[in-house]
Amino acid sequence: MRAVRFVGEHAPPAVQEVEKPVVKDSLDVVVRIAGAGVCRTDIHILDGAAPLQPAPPPPFTLGHENTGWIDAVGSAVSTVSVGDPVILHPAITCGLCMACRNGEDMYCAATRFPGVDGMDGGYAEFLRTSVRAVVPLAKGVAPATQAPLADAGITAYHAVRRVLPELHSGSVVAVLGIGGLGHIGVQLVRTMSPARVFALDLAPERLEFAVRLGAERGFSPADPGFPANFMKASGGDGADVVLDFVGEQNSPEVALGILRRGGTYSIVGYGGKLTVPTVAMITREIRMLGNFVGNYRDLVELMELQRQGRVAVSAKEYPLTQAPRAVDDLRQGKVLGRAVLIP
Amino acid sequence: MRAVRFVGEHAPPAVQEVEKPVVKDSLDVVVRIAGAGVCRTDIHILDGAAPLQPAPPPPFTLGHENTGWIDAVGSAVSTVSVGDPVILHPAITCGLCMACRNGEDMYCAATRFPGVDGMDGGYAEFLRTSVRAVVPLAKGVAPATQAPLADAGITAYHAVRRVLPELHSGSVVAVLGIGGLGHIGVQLVRTMSPARVFALDLAPERLEFAVRLGAERGFSPADPGFPANFMKASGGDGADVVLDFVGEQNSPEVALGILRRGGTYSIVGYGGKLTVPTVAMITREIRMLGNFVGNYRDLVELMELQRQGRVAVSAKEYPLTQAPRAVDDLRQGKVLGRAVLIP
Amino acid sequence: MRAVRFVGEHAPPAVQEVEKPVVKDSLDVVVRIAGAGVCRTDIHILDGAAPLQPAPPPPFTLGHENTGWIDAVGSAVSTVSVGDPVILHPAITCGLCMACRNGEDMYCAATRFPGVDGMDGGYAEFLRTSVRAVVPLAKGVAPATQAPLADAGITAYHAVRRVLPELHSGSVVAVLGIGGLGHIGVQLVRTMSPARVFALDLAPERLEFAVRLGAERGFSPADPGFPANFMKASGGDGADVVLDFVGEQNSPEVALGILRRGGTYSIVGYGGKLTVPTVAMITREIRMLGNFVGNYRDLVELMELQRQGRVAVSAKEYPLTQAPRAVDDLRQGKVLGRAVLIP
Amino acid sequence: MRAVRFVGEHAPPAVQEVEKPVVKDSLDVVVRIAGAGVCRTDIHILDGAAPLQPAPPPPFTLGHENTGWIDAVGSAVSTVSVGDPVILHPAITCGLCMACRNGEDMYCAATRFPGVDGMDGGYAEFLRTSVRAVVPLAKGVAPATQAPLADAGITAYHAVRRVLPELHSGSVVAVLGIGGLGHIGVQLVRTMSPARVFALDLAPERLEFAVRLGAERGFSPADPGFPANFMKASGGDGADVVLDFVGEQNSPEVALGILRRGGTYSIVGYGGKLTVPTVAMITREIRMLGNFVGNYRDLVELMELQRQGRVAVSAKEYPLTQAPRAVDDLRQGKVLGRAVLIP
Repeated sequence: MRAVRFVGEHAPPAVQEVEKPVVKDSLDVVVRIAGAGVCRTDIHILDGAAPLQPAPPPPFTLGHENTGWIDAVGSAVSTVSVGDPVILHPAITCGLCMACRNGEDMYCAATRFPGVDGMDGGYAEFLRTSVRAVVPLAKGVAPATQAPLADAGITAYHAVRRVLPELHSGSVVAVLGIGGLGHIGVQLVRTMSPARVFALDLAPERLEFAVRLGAERGFSPADPGFPANFMKASGGDGADVVLDFVGEQNSPEVALGILRRGGTYSIVGYGGKLTVPTVAMITREIRMLGNFVGNYRDLVELMELQRQGRVAVSAKEYPLTQAPRAVDDLRQGKVLGRAVLIP
Repeated sequence: MRAVRFVGEHAPPAVQEVEKPVVKDSLDVVVRIAGAGVCRTDIHILDGAAPLQPAPPPPFTLGHENTGWIDAVGSAVSTVSVGDPVILHPAITCGLCMACRNGEDMYCAATRFPGVDGMDGGYAEFLRTSVRAVVPLAKGVAPATQAPLADAGITAYHAVRRVLPELHSGSVVAVLGIGGLGHIGVQLVRTMSPARVFALDLAPERLEFAVRLGAERGFSPADPGFPANFMKASGGDGADVVLDFVGEQNSPEVALGILRRGGTYSIVGYGGKLTVPTVAMITREIRMLGNFVGNYRDLVELMELQRQGRVAVSAKEYPLTQAPRAVDDLRQGKVLGRAVLIP
Repeated sequence: MRAVRFVGEHAPPAVQEVEKPVVKDSLDVVVRIAGAGVCRTDIHILDGAAPLQPAPPPPFTLGHENTGWIDAVGSAVSTVSVGDPVILHPAITCGLCMACRNGEDMYCAATRFPGVDGMDGGYAEFLRTSVRAVVPLAKGVAPATQAPLADAGITAYHAVRRVLPELHSGSVVAVLGIGGLGHIGVQLVRTMSPARVFALDLAPERLEFAVRLGAERGFSPADPGFPANFMKASGGDGADVVLDFVGEQNSPEVALGILRRGGTYSIVGYGGKLTVPTVAMITREIRMLGNFVGNYRDLVELMELQRQGRVAVSAKEYPLTQAPRAVDDLRQGKVLGRAVLIP
Repeated sequence: MRAVRFVGEHAPPAVQEVEKPVVKDSLDVVVRIAGAGVCRTDIHILDGAAPLQPAPPPPFTLGHENTGWIDAVGSAVSTVSVGDPVILHPAITCGLCMACRNGEDMYCAATRFPGVDGMDGGYAEFLRTSVRAVVPLAKGVAPATQAPLADAGITAYHAVRRVLPELHSGSVVAVLGIGGLGHIGVQLVRTMSPARVFALDLAPERLEFAVRLGAERGFSPADPGFPANFMKASGGDGADVVLDFVGEQNSPEVALGILRRGGTYSIVGYGGKLTVPTVAMITREIRMLGNFVGNYRDLVELMELQRQGRVAVSAKEYPLTQAPRAVDDLRQGKVLGRAVLIP
């Protein structure tokens, strides 16, 4: 079958012919891929800045954001059948450790992460994973364009869900970065909480996009009136929560500059460095929170909101073989929403 | 009356004769000081590194950790009488803003902070504050040696209370710095939660002190076996919560190096800088929390534990006029527990 | 001035001429009434079933759900001025007890409750209360028709806010009773949480009303297909939360009959009796929650949602002198939303 | 092998010879029983008042509170080996439903409950269960006398853990019923929270027992000074939380009579009926909570406290064949702590 692979740092992803995966374990499933989203993490891997260290050596198939149809199942699989449309949680988990028993899938002691940790991912015609990663899609949903919910969506959902206890009526949430994750984050804050949503991005078309998705207003951190205009619009005290979907360049400084006393800086994007004097942490009682993908339950709950029409993903389709172009478009900020590869 | 004052950066505190304060507002009280604790914040002020910026100009009387007896009351004061023994919350609050109405005293929009923000503090024979800052002491309690509970105690209590939801049976709490705050923190984690307590300090006598107060074991970050010995003792994964009562030198590095995935780094001490790559925040789902003193309710609850004998402060008394020596002893790490000035 | 008064059990409310109230205390305000909502609690008082026991003796002016304009202020009032449009929290609180300091207004040890506890209420041209009960209205809001937010609204808000931690994506909330409180409750669950909302009422026009306000679907407990149709629509397990705005007749049985394992039965309406075998509490892990009005903060947050247009009250206006007719209309179920008396 | 069986309502449990159980499923384990605790639920079953309805028909082996040693394991079992000492969670769960994935073991859609739902329990020489129910015991722990932790202990732990967020310094917890569960509950509140513990029981020796275990004081509800003496000792407002380990006779009335405004009535024992006017629920903002055994995680955490010596069970041993006498002793209130059958 065809697959798009990481073949070395600073090399473009390579379209190659590889073996089709087969069921090995009793809980395995093989999924025929409908869509595979292109994530900034793929760029980090290609650039030699993989999030998991030590970085797994090439070659392996990229793609950790996948939907498709069940193609084959292991002997102990009883909850899905061949042909079922599904969306896949990015991780494979053991089900027996305390993390798994408590729904903390991402902390599973034996977790695998296809497309990221060296195991083959979903930039391919077929993918092998576990039935524990499978969430059935509602009837009538076309799988391909839902792929971004599997990683961009679950990660935004996880981050938003964790700050819900901080979000009261009148709370202000700043969503920093209106890309693949941020455009879903805006919708989630709006539909899951009573908070007000302000969007931050450098691109005017992304700010307009955010307003169409439910943000009250958009701000560019490059605007000379920033952050004064933000502070005023917030009522004077700044944001109760900043959801930072960028996490590099100067995003930590922007975030901490608009955060109110006792506020929460929730970090999702990565690549940069966070530096803060401890005295500022103390006197302002700052709270910071890192977020790593999300749990199986997060994906199930997100798909319920999708079913109800309360969240929708904006996807731009590319043929699988044009993965290099999709990656370049993402690099250059040309994708509004998320790029999805279609085998 | 006599008072010990901040008279300029890098100058020692000066013993001076000043006017005795008088009641001005209907909710004012004047308190005859029994004891005033010596805090590292006093050193930061003397060294030109005041926590509140812009730094208030000299001269003003230091001391934000006070006990005493009611000496005079304003016209609207009905809950305490002249002669009552009391401990004082460090801040003066308005009672009308939303922060005050929700018990978030330290976020009061009109807060004053005697001994820190330029208003005269309690290194003196008398102090003026508001009845809203007053917590009556239980019968039979000698006020002088309880003074450290007013700031060291409340701050440790506030920090511990905020992480209680993270503390399960089997959780590991690392208490970093067994000084004025840390020696109370150890006791509080032990009596308020089912967690295990590990103490971290460079001084062996402080580690022994911590074990006497309820810590399971002590570790020196300077020990060549550290952090491996800590990780092993914790069961392999590290600390669920690090309470950092130091917040300077390399304490953030020590703290982040022993924190487990999904763990909480709670910062109380200050003076240093925190630097962390966003990717580490993400993949390890680190949570960080700044703490600034505590609310009135925190002090009330702490004094209830004191009344029950579940927490006790270790105080070393100095005459008020020997404040400079007390400050030097604190600087040189010669105080086990907390130094208290007695007028 | 004119006032409508409780003059004895089982007698209709009487329109009488009484003295206009005046400022007595330094924090008092006198408010010229714009609108006063008619609540089922008024009916309970008129029927000799007052919620506060012992029942306060007649005569006194009814009305605990009020909006208006500041008419006079005490000497210590600084946050509002004569002429300001305001909505009034139902209770007068002391500001000094621990309940007040923690934002638990309804637990204030010295609370007064005009219109309910024997102190004169707002079925009148003027009302005396405390500035601590005052929430300023946003510019451009006509006070009269907002009156129901002061009690029906705050109570629904309080009840919904307290169950928010239980409301996940996919959760089912049953709102039982689509009257003055319920029609606000439906909107609040919809705009503050990701949950699904099902409405329960005997009257078809109220169920349609609920669907217009955001409920997914309505059910009549008198329908022969009930509760099977409810259970099926919920996905099989029943409601995660039942908000019972009725609390009398058979509403507890209806509520417990549709509650899922581990679910929460939140009670707001009253008058009836709750009977349940302890074994059912145990094996189904039922949670029950009583709700009594709400805190000042609840009203502030509710008015913020009103300002944003995320919640709107449906009010039917009556002249003050027609209070007896308004009460009768409420008794007979003729009011869709809430009746408001206009002086 | 020998087993003690439920052979019909109102008949004493019968000592019979039955087949030794064998491994059937790949995750099965067979455990050689060391100790099996005698629970009031066994009495309810024998008396025809089984908690699970419809009541499972006789005959089946009783016993849902078991410790022992692994005797045989299924093909997929990798975490324990033959000979390991273990304590057993009472339920067998599927591991795949959302309840299992979120750690809510008792809500598992496919749960089995040996000794209670008709499947054979642990009043026997051997028991078959799943490896998912197994918690390894710490080295050096004699399994027999730990058996009560498997049900009495886990249930008390679950109930206490769920009210921890309500327990502040100064909070008052009333533990109602100092029997098999209650004597563990007293210790757990004391070691896991800063709350004060008051014990309630009719028997003076049980109240003394509670005080030895950490209760501040004991009260008999039959004392003519009750509840006035309780209210006074609590500081005037009553209990913040009542943990009712009785749940029959007049325990709900006793509990509700000492509960403070906004307090929580947590029900663990069963057999009686709870009746309360909705108006009392409302004006007092009562919270009620049913508790059903506990999750796997609860047992793991409880055993950690046992390992640390922070909780200890008081067990009275009987030979397995004397089960009828043990049951009678429990009925007659002759057991201080818990009766355990030793095969």
